[in-house]
Amino acid sequence: MAPLAPRSGDAVFANVERVNAELFTLTYGAIVRQLLTDLEEVEEVNKQLDQMGYNIGIRLIDEFLAKSNVSRCVDFKETCDVIAKVGFKMFLGVTATVSNWDAEGTSCSIILEDNPLVDFVELPDTCQGLNYCNILSGVIRGALEMVSMKTEITWVRDMLHGDDAYELRLKLLKQVPEEYPYKDDE
Amino acid sequence: MAPLAPRSGDAVFANVERVNAELFTLTYGAIVRQLLTDLEEVEEVNKQLDQMGYNIGIRLIDEFLAKSNVSRCVDFKETCDVIAKVGFKMFLGVTATVSNWDAEGTSCSIILEDNPLVDFVELPDTCQGLNYCNILSGVIRGALEMVSMKTEITWVRDMLHGDDAYELRLKLLKQVPEEYPYKDDE
Repeated sequence: MAPLAPRSGDAVFANVERVNAELFTLTYGAIVRQLLTDLEEVEEVNKQLDQMGYNIGIRLIDEFLAKSNVSRCVDFKETCDVIAKVGFKMFLGVTATVSNWDAEGTSCSIILEDNPLVDFVELPDTCQGLNYCNILSGVIRGALEMVSMKTEITWVRDMLHGDDAYELRLKLLKQVPEEYPYKDDE
Repeated sequence: MAPLAPRSGDAVFANVERVNAELFTLTYGAIVRQLLTDLEEVEEVNKQLDQMGYNIGIRLIDEFLAKSNVSRCVDFKETCDVIAKVGFKMFLGVTATVSNWDAEGTSCSIILEDNPLVDFVELPDTCQGLNYCNILSGVIRGALEMVSMKTEITWVRDMLHGDDAYELRLKLLKQVPEEYPYKDDE
């Protein structure tokens, strides 16, 4: 059987089950507020959001591979393009851009101008160290780990902190060669 | 200007911004897991989920009224129909049915057969008292309170506990007459 062609983010997004973005935004806001109450330290909240995202990412990658028909990316560069153009569209309904590659092709920025997580959000003065969207970096880190790429992901720009966009810096730390046989039907 | 006709849940859902349902489901699962870890007591988690839902509901009602063009419902009965047919569709993409009205028209059941919150969820034995979807009852309670209906909402059936559907029992406790002038443009 000929392999299926990869689908555009728009095409995938049009066909997956969806829920109202405002409900998602408010639900996410409720998590962050809960964590701030329970953990008190902003730095702990950042860690916890990242960990929650990681746990989501290691599961979401299956949905991504199943629905997007994206086949194995040849390298980190192609992978980052797919995350920005297909992944963000498929899950959040927005498109991101990739830029600022280093010479080695092992780190780049993913830039988001529209981010449904932060609608209606304003950070109080006590939360200036909060990476409100840290769940996103966790999701990407978790998903990439499932395709054998160990990464470090940090926020470089954040509109909640007054920047003009959201910029995530992705750094490939290690690419583990896959040794087990890869089965298409799993 | 003639009032706009109310829109069907399908029509509204097609036009609101949406995110991927699986991302929402996994994010909600991450909240519940976090609460179970932090609060330990299942009964406390139920309360917290309800409270989070309530906080969401009191904000979500604005989006609902703005996007659905639903005008003031004449009574509790009509309100419950609108929640089931327009509200659930608009926010979760599923339809619910209303049944089991009592003679006074002050309590009824909202029944859900499809519930995106619980995809992939199985409750371990230690969580048998957990009302996993308690955020939903909180959202409805909060939203209704903003249109002056004080309600008590309980789970009667829950597929995670082996029932054949999700059934929420809504009981109208008090309907507060509105005394302030109602402005259409707010």
